[in-house]
Amino acid sequence: MKRIALGVQYNGADWHGYQIQPHGITVQDKLEQAIQQFACAHLPTTCAGRTDAGVHALGQVVHFDTDLTRETHAWVRGINAFLPESIGVRWAREVQELEPVAEGEYREGEFHARFSARSRTYHYLLYNHQVRSPLLAGRAGFCHRPLDVELMRAGAAHLIGEHDFSAFRAAQCQAKTPVKQMYEVGVARHGDMILFTLRASAFLHHMVRNLVGSLIYVGQGREQPEWMAELLAGRDRTVAAPTFMPDGLYLANIEYDEKWGLPAEAASILPAF
Amino acid sequence: MKRIALGVQYNGADWHGYQIQPHGITVQDKLEQAIQQFACAHLPTTCAGRTDAGVHALGQVVHFDTDLTRETHAWVRGINAFLPESIGVRWAREVQELEPVAEGEYREGEFHARFSARSRTYHYLLYNHQVRSPLLAGRAGFCHRPLDVELMRAGAAHLIGEHDFSAFRAAQCQAKTPVKQMYEVGVARHGDMILFTLRASAFLHHMVRNLVGSLIYVGQGREQPEWMAELLAGRDRTVAAPTFMPDGLYLANIEYDEKWGLPAEAASILPAF
Repeated sequence: MKRIALGVQYNGADWHGYQIQPHGITVQDKLEQAIQQFACAHLPTTCAGRTDAGVHALGQVVHFDTDLTRETHAWVRGINAFLPESIGVRWAREVQELEPVAEGEYREGEFHARFSARSRTYHYLLYNHQVRSPLLAGRAGFCHRPLDVELMRAGAAHLIGEHDFSAFRAAQCQAKTPVKQMYEVGVARHGDMILFTLRASAFLHHMVRNLVGSLIYVGQGREQPEWMAELLAGRDRTVAAPTFMPDGLYLANIEYDEKWGLPAEAASILPAF
Repeated sequence: MKRIALGVQYNGADWHGYQIQPHGITVQDKLEQAIQQFACAHLPTTCAGRTDAGVHALGQVVHFDTDLTRETHAWVRGINAFLPESIGVRWAREVQELEPVAEGEYREGEFHARFSARSRTYHYLLYNHQVRSPLLAGRAGFCHRPLDVELMRAGAAHLIGEHDFSAFRAAQCQAKTPVKQMYEVGVARHGDMILFTLRASAFLHHMVRNLVGSLIYVGQGREQPEWMAELLAGRDRTVAAPTFMPDGLYLANIEYDEKWGLPAEAASILPAF
């Protein structure tokens, strides 16, 4: 039995989130159907990070187990042949030979898309202009008020390190603990676009959208940068800004130990023009 | 009577081209419906450049005549309120007071979205990678073979100046003459993306897609750069490469005399990430 890891991209605007649900068609539904059509067997998959409806992925990682022997490029082409154009496999790697385990079980020392991840990187792309752009609908968040990037950077600095992120946690979040390690919060302006880059040990449900919403309050001058520290300390979701729109959120990368040999694909698919 | 100019953007993937047609819903249908809803009158519009199904616009320019007096930002917001999210007005300017003319007529000295244009700029965005990206579906052309940008630049150099572009003209093209003045053909690589920028006095039907298709042959090494000059000289559409996919084509800008005071909006809506 081999464990195969896949790098997966998708446009989340077309799907009811990543994970299989009772209602609505999800990315996982389509991916498992495509794997089944190519492999002629149902091979359950496990992903690194569950994304909500409307949220995109540049670097989702998924694993599954199989007895089939295929070249890695055959997995990529074969699965892609059965996927809709808004979902695609970017790469495949055989990460491990292993004994079969029951679905959802995890043994120490095994590669696991979710449990082996050391950190996750999200991008939030925000269009900051007086007038909306139809080419960015579903692709970027939108804020028509002027935003001060320096103020947002000062606010973001308070988020670095280990914190209880309860103030930015959705009520329905199933994480065991609200304490996460934030490694990086970048805020960069490219013309009328602002790109937020957040890297943390893990993220709570809605955490990026809640953080971005509060940073936008800071960027507008509605709140001071220190407000971000106050929100963390207060641990009260009702005080922070509302959850910001999903349109600009991209699961950009999942970081693993080098020993797994997964490709570090640069997610540079959008040019400046 | 006033002539109003609008800057219009759209995602062409959703529409059967720009111009009103007997079959299928077009950008012009939606734009004129929205103007009618805002202005409570049917105001026929004239555009600078008709785009095909699947082709996008960052800087389409449209004019119409009206007796209504509105602030320019009211035209923008008012019309946008009635447009679907894949079409948007970016700016409005009152360009001229004038006497009414019959639809389609043009008087010397009047601003006209099409006849007053000095040149047009198109972008063609091409994703050059072994594997397609679902986030670029409908947004960029795709070529999985390696492409040499230097060879394509050498080929593009043959296009500069006044030429008969019959070799790159669709059979159904209605232009009076195939002779156009090409001012610029840029070919720039940004990681896995290649951005072609073409500026000419005017373009024939399918001309950008036909030129890009042939430049890709040159970039693959299937043809030498000098082939572009041979194609121009031969004026035979059947010899050049097939029409390339519309997905990556953007009407980027229409250039007018400064006296009209139209905003020179930088079309920098996509960031590098």
